[in-house]
Amino acid sequence: MERDSSPSDQFHRYKNLIQNGDNPDITKERQGASFNLYNMQCFVYENDHKLQRRQEILEFVESHREFDDPVHPHFLNRDEQIDRATRKCLAMVDNLDAIDVTDYFDEAPLYQLLTIGRELHCLSLHYGMFLPTIQVHTEKSLILGPFQMAASKAILGTFAQTELGHGSNLSKLETTATYDATTKEFVIHTPTMSAGKWWPGGLGKSANYAAVMAQLYTSGESKGPHLFMVQLRDNAHAPLPGVTVGDIGPKLGNNANDNGFLIFDHYRIPRRNMFMKYSKVEADGTYIPPPHAKLGFGAMVLVRLLMIRDQTCQLGAAAVIAIRYSAVRHSAVRQGEINEGEGEVQILDYRTQQYRLLPQLARSFPSSQRMRSRNSTSKYVTKQINNNANMELLPELHALSSGLKAVITWEVAQGIEQLRLSCGGHGYSRASAFPDMYAYAVGGCTYEGENIVMLLQVARFLMMIAKEVRSGNPKLAEIAEYIAKPDAVTARISSWKTCSDEDIIHDFEAVTRKLIFATFDRLTTLERTMKKKEAWNACSIDLCKAARMHVKTYLVKNFLARVRTCEDPASRTVMHTLAKLYAFDLISGGGGHFMKGGFLSEKQFNEVQLGIYEMLAAIRPDSVALADSWAISDLELRSVLGRRDGNVYPALLEWAQQSPLNQN
Amino acid sequence: MERDSSPSDQFHRYKNLIQNGDNPDITKERQGASFNLYNMQCFVYENDHKLQRRQEILEFVESHREFDDPVHPHFLNRDEQIDRATRKCLAMVDNLDAIDVTDYFDEAPLYQLLTIGRELHCLSLHYGMFLPTIQVHTEKSLILGPFQMAASKAILGTFAQTELGHGSNLSKLETTATYDATTKEFVIHTPTMSAGKWWPGGLGKSANYAAVMAQLYTSGESKGPHLFMVQLRDNAHAPLPGVTVGDIGPKLGNNANDNGFLIFDHYRIPRRNMFMKYSKVEADGTYIPPPHAKLGFGAMVLVRLLMIRDQTCQLGAAAVIAIRYSAVRHSAVRQGEINEGEGEVQILDYRTQQYRLLPQLARSFPSSQRMRSRNSTSKYVTKQINNNANMELLPELHALSSGLKAVITWEVAQGIEQLRLSCGGHGYSRASAFPDMYAYAVGGCTYEGENIVMLLQVARFLMMIAKEVRSGNPKLAEIAEYIAKPDAVTARISSWKTCSDEDIIHDFEAVTRKLIFATFDRLTTLERTMKKKEAWNACSIDLCKAARMHVKTYLVKNFLARVRTCEDPASRTVMHTLAKLYAFDLISGGGGHFMKGGFLSEKQFNEVQLGIYEMLAAIRPDSVALADSWAISDLELRSVLGRRDGNVYPALLEWAQQSPLNQN
Repeated sequence: MERDSSPSDQFHRYKNLIQNGDNPDITKERQGASFNLYNMQCFVYENDHKLQRRQEILEFVESHREFDDPVHPHFLNRDEQIDRATRKCLAMVDNLDAIDVTDYFDEAPLYQLLTIGRELHCLSLHYGMFLPTIQVHTEKSLILGPFQMAASKAILGTFAQTELGHGSNLSKLETTATYDATTKEFVIHTPTMSAGKWWPGGLGKSANYAAVMAQLYTSGESKGPHLFMVQLRDNAHAPLPGVTVGDIGPKLGNNANDNGFLIFDHYRIPRRNMFMKYSKVEADGTYIPPPHAKLGFGAMVLVRLLMIRDQTCQLGAAAVIAIRYSAVRHSAVRQGEINEGEGEVQILDYRTQQYRLLPQLARSFPSSQRMRSRNSTSKYVTKQINNNANMELLPELHALSSGLKAVITWEVAQGIEQLRLSCGGHGYSRASAFPDMYAYAVGGCTYEGENIVMLLQVARFLMMIAKEVRSGNPKLAEIAEYIAKPDAVTARISSWKTCSDEDIIHDFEAVTRKLIFATFDRLTTLERTMKKKEAWNACSIDLCKAARMHVKTYLVKNFLARVRTCEDPASRTVMHTLAKLYAFDLISGGGGHFMKGGFLSEKQFNEVQLGIYEMLAAIRPDSVALADSWAISDLELRSVLGRRDGNVYPALLEWAQQSPLNQN
Repeated sequence: MERDSSPSDQFHRYKNLIQNGDNPDITKERQGASFNLYNMQCFVYENDHKLQRRQEILEFVESHREFDDPVHPHFLNRDEQIDRATRKCLAMVDNLDAIDVTDYFDEAPLYQLLTIGRELHCLSLHYGMFLPTIQVHTEKSLILGPFQMAASKAILGTFAQTELGHGSNLSKLETTATYDATTKEFVIHTPTMSAGKWWPGGLGKSANYAAVMAQLYTSGESKGPHLFMVQLRDNAHAPLPGVTVGDIGPKLGNNANDNGFLIFDHYRIPRRNMFMKYSKVEADGTYIPPPHAKLGFGAMVLVRLLMIRDQTCQLGAAAVIAIRYSAVRHSAVRQGEINEGEGEVQILDYRTQQYRLLPQLARSFPSSQRMRSRNSTSKYVTKQINNNANMELLPELHALSSGLKAVITWEVAQGIEQLRLSCGGHGYSRASAFPDMYAYAVGGCTYEGENIVMLLQVARFLMMIAKEVRSGNPKLAEIAEYIAKPDAVTARISSWKTCSDEDIIHDFEAVTRKLIFATFDRLTTLERTMKKKEAWNACSIDLCKAARMHVKTYLVKNFLARVRTCEDPASRTVMHTLAKLYAFDLISGGGGHFMKGGFLSEKQFNEVQLGIYEMLAAIRPDSVALADSWAISDLELRSVLGRRDGNVYPALLEWAQQSPLNQN
């Protein structure tokens, strides 16, 4: 294709998206869009610099042979997958100059997706947790020995916290680190079967060092969980005496990663291998506690924000695949269905199909975009923490990130499966990319804080605020301000075309507020007749519901606010409909809450339903272009069904013929 | 363990379930049950003969070395998985005398689960579709040549219907079978890329014959889709000239099955290879049509009923794993949670965990049990069809089986994932069995009739009835009788302890009826201003909702009816609570429908919510015993987390150490 030379047109992906030989159905869709794709992509990616960087990184990876796959990764067994991931990791590290490695939210994940695909790998924890841990927890003056080696790549590290019998609660970890003042060493030990470290990525075969979380004992006293730098393997990569280490076997996904187990038998490490930036053990065994108990929060918030961004992109990619395939896939017309007697119909024209696709597409936009702005918030907070300042901001940000993590990971997982199922049988083939995508994404519901635990943390924050409001002394953070507003008895929502953003926000806030106070009242009533903990347990299902609604209200408000910043009128119109579809779909799905006490009248509920159907019809002509606005290349997408050119069937056959079963 | 010798005690599994060395937590649960497990198992399996047979088949498989796995199947690559499945299949076929092969609903699937596990395999379609097809579609006088060979095991067949570009609609298949009267042969041909057969199980490497669905052309006229017996591979198992065949590559699950593709290039087969029981092509090319257009219905109904039974057992097994693991898994007590300061708490005591587990357990019982009674219905219907009689029963049974298939496969898939997530990180390991279970079960949402297509078929049946009712001339089948009852304005439901089965049924029927007529009215209104097909499409989301509610109402009624047949009072009490939990959970989840127009008051809705929490607490002490009542052996369960003895952690380590990655 001919390419204009003007800077803005250089990344006018629309032109590259329409090429000779494409499936005519998909070209027709692209030509029928109501907005300019370049403008929309700039809105989605905030500015054209980011679009340009996406293109440059793509070209870099495509032009480097060491990133090629001689055999399609789908046809590798587990050993081969791990070998491939290791090879790709080395190539990635050798070429780190191609990207801004400090851009955790865009460049680094894109680079990884383009080189390795959707897989955790032996370096995931090295870069994602081990090096940051060293950075955060090591005093500058002590970055010596192993700490220095890690920075200089002589070490491949992992982060070993989770134990066989213990998940997210640090205080119950069983691994011990007992200080021996006579030798100035810590003795690392696994006292029981359930204390074995389990799950750390890269531990099974790759890592030679680990940051190990263990209960510190010094001078005969327990000092709680602390981090230690522990060498696991010698220069020949054999486990050191006292260390038993291995792979934990195959999993639902992420099988290119050697998640491992680790058992210590009175294993000794030097005193300086404790991470001593915040708390210390002196040579004589004297313990010096950290200045603030919640120092780990900043890193946790950052990791969750990264997860949310990553997860949302998975949902976006899944929507791209399902929408494009629905545009080129035709259905035999069944008796009584649309256009009977007119041959075949595009699957995308079925209202039930639109209902499977477009709400998921809508879900993928707000969280991705919001996260970019949270990025700067997070950087700000981390900086504040490092200066031991502004700790009061943390509970709010922590609750928000926990809640978003729980709601978004679950919705992404469900959404990917909905989109996969909308593709019929071919969605079940790994050629579609959906199986790997789901296996990768759904892990996020569990790791970095199990979702129910996360929601209950949000609920604790909400109950704290409810108590403040009831006591007439609210010191509320901005995001929770609505909880102090007066009650609303009836909903304002009306037809999707006439209701304002304020109406929608009003209703979400009112319903969530009502839910929070109903739960708060039930909780305080129960607390009069039973132990506080039992009352909390008895209310925990409602507490989770209130937390979910709180997060969803936040998401709706943010999506609507973000749309208002869109400068291109045509893009804004479509995005606004998508945001309303998002809100209406949440109302419809949470029907019970919105209809309770007649808040939403039957007429209003019907308008919400009808509004959804009308919005599906309104967005339908733009759906392929909206998918294109994610600006995802075929290399990043890795899906035969979601190919840019829409030529799915020949590509499926070509893919299948690579199966080793067909080689003899 | 010592065993009593009385016949009823011989299968008193309770005794075998409690053994020395078991995890004390799980033993304590078993000892605390409110009912006698043997009585409950007899209720679940209808009689103790079936329990006895389960035990006998288990012992048979355990005592035959050819069913052993030298290497755990989780650690095999795809080639090895297929080899293993083939080996197991041969051993299975060699020992068919051990079971009643005509018992499709119990003995045959149990035998397969015990020998191979949750996997389709090269014989799945041979036994599940190919042989039944021969049986149903072949005239006795014509069971010659290849047909006879198939019965005598010289042939391994598959059923080739689905094409690359065409799913469930027979009329749009593109493969052609053109009769050549000069040579008295059919020419089988794949005219386009999208006409390639795609997905048939066992086709990729194993099958040498296939029953192929193709558009019949004779004397220059199209006669629609017909079945042909086609040889694919020669005696040396090489594809015959004109046949291109291979494996379609890895999938989300069922990778021990070589699902395949198949392309014909003007491939000739003798005339007698057409399945001619119902329609015929005579030597001169004269076409003789079948006596009745809907002859395929009986087989479809049977396959769906088998699927429903199988799916439900998967959900039951998943509930067994998650409940047992929740009984032995302890949680570190978090700030503010139950029993703070009292050390650890069983995960099973968390109300949120009960909410994840027990409604799924409740879902697994009714459909499994109901299906047994449908079994005989289905046999009756198949017989009637074969006698060309009683065709009027079919639409009802077809709609019912389609609807149950759609609702149950989706709920099973969702349920398995909920249960998996409730097990935290270890649920993500294949050691838990959940990943394989989900991958296997979720395929059921797509094959044998895509779920949305199925729901729309049910909706068509419902709209037909609504029309009859409105016209004052209802000729209703029993299952749909409630649609003709008068409207109900308010709900009857109240506290779970006081409301009767009739109250619950009344409310479900009223809500479903309202939904059906609201949809019918919207449909008929739209039909005045647009084409019928467009109106149907515009209403299709509501049509699916109405169909789902219709099926759920059926499930609730059946569960309650089945509980009333339980003769043991203690078992009946628990099962009745479980049935009410099932109903209340559906009401709560379908909150919007039940609260519309104030049908359920706010007070009633609150009673439903509270009722759920109280029932969770009431069922909690019996949950492990309820899981045990499924009478699933460890060999059948294949889950480290769900082991009978509850000794999960040592078993996890032992399992992981078998990983090939740990061998060097």
